[in-house]
Amino acid sequence: MAETLGVGVIGTGGMGGRHARNLAQTAGARVAAIMDLDAARAGAVAADCGGAVTYTDADALIVAADVDAVVIASPDPTHADLAIGCVEAGKPVLCEKPLATSLADAARVVQAEAAAGRRLVQVGFMRVYDPAHVDLKDLIGRGEIGRPLRFQSGHCNTRFAEPRTVTDAITNSAVHDFHSARWLMGQEIATVYASHVRSVAERPETCRLLLVHLAFADGAVGTVEVNSDSGYGYEVTVEIAGEEGVARTAGLSSPALRKAGNLAHAVAPDWLVRFADAYVVEVGDWVAALRAGAPTGPSAWDGYMSLAIADACVRSVDAGAPQEVRTMDRPELYVG
Amino acid sequence: MAETLGVGVIGTGGMGGRHARNLAQTAGARVAAIMDLDAARAGAVAADCGGAVTYTDADALIVAADVDAVVIASPDPTHADLAIGCVEAGKPVLCEKPLATSLADAARVVQAEAAAGRRLVQVGFMRVYDPAHVDLKDLIGRGEIGRPLRFQSGHCNTRFAEPRTVTDAITNSAVHDFHSARWLMGQEIATVYASHVRSVAERPETCRLLLVHLAFADGAVGTVEVNSDSGYGYEVTVEIAGEEGVARTAGLSSPALRKAGNLAHAVAPDWLVRFADAYVVEVGDWVAALRAGAPTGPSAWDGYMSLAIADACVRSVDAGAPQEVRTMDRPELYVG
Amino acid sequence: MAETLGVGVIGTGGMGGRHARNLAQTAGARVAAIMDLDAARAGAVAADCGGAVTYTDADALIVAADVDAVVIASPDPTHADLAIGCVEAGKPVLCEKPLATSLADAARVVQAEAAAGRRLVQVGFMRVYDPAHVDLKDLIGRGEIGRPLRFQSGHCNTRFAEPRTVTDAITNSAVHDFHSARWLMGQEIATVYASHVRSVAERPETCRLLLVHLAFADGAVGTVEVNSDSGYGYEVTVEIAGEEGVARTAGLSSPALRKAGNLAHAVAPDWLVRFADAYVVEVGDWVAALRAGAPTGPSAWDGYMSLAIADACVRSVDAGAPQEVRTMDRPELYVG
Amino acid sequence: MAETLGVGVIGTGGMGGRHARNLAQTAGARVAAIMDLDAARAGAVAADCGGAVTYTDADALIVAADVDAVVIASPDPTHADLAIGCVEAGKPVLCEKPLATSLADAARVVQAEAAAGRRLVQVGFMRVYDPAHVDLKDLIGRGEIGRPLRFQSGHCNTRFAEPRTVTDAITNSAVHDFHSARWLMGQEIATVYASHVRSVAERPETCRLLLVHLAFADGAVGTVEVNSDSGYGYEVTVEIAGEEGVARTAGLSSPALRKAGNLAHAVAPDWLVRFADAYVVEVGDWVAALRAGAPTGPSAWDGYMSLAIADACVRSVDAGAPQEVRTMDRPELYVG
Repeated sequence: MAETLGVGVIGTGGMGGRHARNLAQTAGARVAAIMDLDAARAGAVAADCGGAVTYTDADALIVAADVDAVVIASPDPTHADLAIGCVEAGKPVLCEKPLATSLADAARVVQAEAAAGRRLVQVGFMRVYDPAHVDLKDLIGRGEIGRPLRFQSGHCNTRFAEPRTVTDAITNSAVHDFHSARWLMGQEIATVYASHVRSVAERPETCRLLLVHLAFADGAVGTVEVNSDSGYGYEVTVEIAGEEGVARTAGLSSPALRKAGNLAHAVAPDWLVRFADAYVVEVGDWVAALRAGAPTGPSAWDGYMSLAIADACVRSVDAGAPQEVRTMDRPELYVG
Repeated sequence: MAETLGVGVIGTGGMGGRHARNLAQTAGARVAAIMDLDAARAGAVAADCGGAVTYTDADALIVAADVDAVVIASPDPTHADLAIGCVEAGKPVLCEKPLATSLADAARVVQAEAAAGRRLVQVGFMRVYDPAHVDLKDLIGRGEIGRPLRFQSGHCNTRFAEPRTVTDAITNSAVHDFHSARWLMGQEIATVYASHVRSVAERPETCRLLLVHLAFADGAVGTVEVNSDSGYGYEVTVEIAGEEGVARTAGLSSPALRKAGNLAHAVAPDWLVRFADAYVVEVGDWVAALRAGAPTGPSAWDGYMSLAIADACVRSVDAGAPQEVRTMDRPELYVG
Repeated sequence: MAETLGVGVIGTGGMGGRHARNLAQTAGARVAAIMDLDAARAGAVAADCGGAVTYTDADALIVAADVDAVVIASPDPTHADLAIGCVEAGKPVLCEKPLATSLADAARVVQAEAAAGRRLVQVGFMRVYDPAHVDLKDLIGRGEIGRPLRFQSGHCNTRFAEPRTVTDAITNSAVHDFHSARWLMGQEIATVYASHVRSVAERPETCRLLLVHLAFADGAVGTVEVNSDSGYGYEVTVEIAGEEGVARTAGLSSPALRKAGNLAHAVAPDWLVRFADAYVVEVGDWVAALRAGAPTGPSAWDGYMSLAIADACVRSVDAGAPQEVRTMDRPELYVG
Repeated sequence: MAETLGVGVIGTGGMGGRHARNLAQTAGARVAAIMDLDAARAGAVAADCGGAVTYTDADALIVAADVDAVVIASPDPTHADLAIGCVEAGKPVLCEKPLATSLADAARVVQAEAAAGRRLVQVGFMRVYDPAHVDLKDLIGRGEIGRPLRFQSGHCNTRFAEPRTVTDAITNSAVHDFHSARWLMGQEIATVYASHVRSVAERPETCRLLLVHLAFADGAVGTVEVNSDSGYGYEVTVEIAGEEGVARTAGLSSPALRKAGNLAHAVAPDWLVRFADAYVVEVGDWVAALRAGAPTGPSAWDGYMSLAIADACVRSVDAGAPQEVRTMDRPELYVG
């Protein structure tokens, strides 16, 4: 595998710029192309990445000859069609979450990939590359807590400028936690019951804090919380109780500062800081896997499943009652 | 208030013996009487407490002339009638939780006290005297996290020899957490949704871990977890998210031991160790309050409310759906 | 032992008032007498303690018939003579540290007690009653870290209004740590090497931070630090490395507060808050021990030894070189 | 800077193999050559690094045309001469610590580089690339604790198979801490006083635990501890007290495991695990700096200074008294 992998990056917002710059520091890869409707911004990122070619047309980037693989970091509504475009062009693609903005669109991506008959799509659930999460997964895998019985995740944002809707909290934030739950528990989520605290008392659709109760197919239970406006910082914690013990992701990694009446640890302000290492590992692992043959990270099916759980949550909020997670049949490509 | 308070203790099991010995070290109190069907055990405790008179008849202890106040620590099914006996005798009583083994019986105690027209009953929710809980309550009271939005409690036992029923986990363990939730949030619980992990897969009534989703009357949400068989130790943690921040009870207070590959802190094996200080403060505060006039701790109404929430949980397990908490009207005695 | 112990308290500053009020809540004791040159302050404390008799003459209090035991919490220079007065009157005495303001005076107390032929003096090294310290001592006693090899203590004050002298930091603060070191290590300190950071650069006698290097008689080593002006709060930590592991006193017991970019734990502002429980246990244990016969806490010899180590530290600062700890012969009374 | 940097690695033991493999994953670098007397081991590492040329003669590697820069990870006694060889060949070199095994040899490297008139040598003090240390440095740099007054470092190894000598503990382990102290405090160490606990009671040269008392030129103080045989794991902690507060490196980053009576965090077994990230960043930073012109990490002077402090420590152990740190004059190359 002497050749480096030419990567094209679609979208140069926070995540796209981050991925491009990380790829520029990844052994075995080079940033071949950058696409953004904002040509100036695309040019700025390209300059940081050793002079990649810039595009304002995503489809043109996908089919470019020196683009071996694609990163999709454009606005959410474009994800599904662009991912399908990559699949149809036979090019591996790392698509930021969510895979789609509707469950039907996510199903289209799954179907396209299943029709192609091989794994081309990876979804940007970067927590699976975060050392704190990986350490927890490994600990469970070594059997240290026995069979997992209860999942608990806390997903805390600093502030949202505007009240967000409960649908947005579910579809844009909690999808990460749903994937985390499936991955760490090694079980599927069967039923959800969601409730929320309103940001604006008289507007029931606004969501200050989302709390989802989970029932897994194998009898385990769990909770997912999204605190959108914590007044604190950005923090993700997972705790899993098993038959033999309880394990929790490592705490804050900042220095202990004793000052003015408090022993304090600073928290990250946002995910770009908190998951900085995970994003580096994610693209490094993705490049290495592609050079070895095929992606090994979270699949289109994983992206679909998170949205199927999100769909059940939205129904639960509407109904005020627990709802079953409903899915299409799992294509053979994703079995085992 | 020159005279010391003569206290009679009914029941000398783990809690009764503990309360008696603590009262013997409490300024302003003396242990006047000890009752147990097991006269030898009553005698042993009495000897530790400066030679109290022993009884095998609880009613006789209640009416004894030198018994100014009573502690009930006998088996749960006896609580309600004994508490009513104390109320009718006009004697203040500290009754171990649960106040009764049915909601109807708890209502009888409330009605008896309401008829008496003055506070005589205190229920043994000792967490309100635990420094870790008091510090959290104070922090919230100072407004440090703003209005409470989400309650989370973890209640972890070491091991149960036999599989316990979900009803037992709710009625005997979670009642503590329900009181904790009401007290710390300063809000009433309106709806609950309970699910559990079975201890024995083929026996749906067995409960390895209970998880209850709460909706408060003022729009807050929460969870209560009882992990009956953790393989770890005895630990109670509460975390509350408010509009301005998130606060959690202090962690383990044991030394940090670095040894053999781990940095470890020992956990308490049971509640008698974990809440040792709280039990001392509880009886000290109770004695001081009685000497000053009337009990100020958790009331019969609080005991009733915990059981009303427990009742809704049991219904939720049966129905597999959220259930409203249903209560009698709150007597005037408990308002404000 | 039916009678309660009548205690006289000399001095009603911070510690004297605290001890008096704690004794008023101690089963088996009553506050019989309060002495202070400030009669109004003595009266206020006496009123809080159930109406004790007040004195402005310490010697009169010591010999009062209803005073069975004495607490000395008057200014440091008075300690030695008052303690000797108690010994000569045959009355047990709990003397605040330091036992004396010179090593020679401390020797006089030791000699007086040795001449009396029985233990009457206890010195107020309250850390031996602090749960965090007791837990560490117990852990070592169980052999969990093997033989202790290295002692490390941090003693952190919030602020001093005026620059303190290095002699004061040694004699008034570090004496606590010297006792802690001897008690926890179970070894005597043979040599010390002390250096300090100045509060005021051009005044070598001022002490912002004191750092003492210890060599124990059995080959162990250690450090004692006094940070007088930390800008943080009041905290005492001890860490001991042994042949099999390293143990450290429990951390802060305050709630975890996540807010405004930090996860924070509040620290105590001063020793009255930090050691509130230890002071209660100290007088409770002292009263119980006296009622059972004789004091069991830190002895006059312990008070003398801390001052002998302090004396070596002062010599080390002057000499800029390590100094041996020099002591009188240990009287038979304190052997074993 | 289109060309990648060809790096030759001398020595393929633990550190050499690690550096080679890290360089193989470093953007902008390629492993051009591997030298080891053990040709088979050299070949194995070369195979992992994309097929580098192997050597058994270090001098041949240094002068090879496609070797642009050199990593020295051979046995300690070879360091100085190999580093001088690189300097004379005009090739940048990353030399593992210690820079030399005698202060005189370290001086020769410094003199050679000074004669060359430009920075070519970097010493492998990788802690300056460790996130926990960098975060502490940044915090101090932001002025959060004011002027540093006291340094404390703990350097804990798991086990040594054989008793090590105190000279070895100083020269091979504590040199890291001496650099850490200089770097984090931003002050030079003026005087040291070292004592140690013996591994074998009757052999004074054996060292179970080393404790060094530091006095800085600007009036600050400090301690360095090396616990060679902790029975725990590998851990490095630094705590610095300043005029406004006290800061400490982040704690363990492993999951919290609640099990069997303890809340535990696993510690790293050795430095290869603990500093895995730091080693990656170290070579990445070194490569990037070389491609931009010259190394920016710890210099030959830093390597020399650590050995000068070590030399004073060895003298202090021999003399049983504090010793001044004595150094050559600082060449102009290292000023500012």
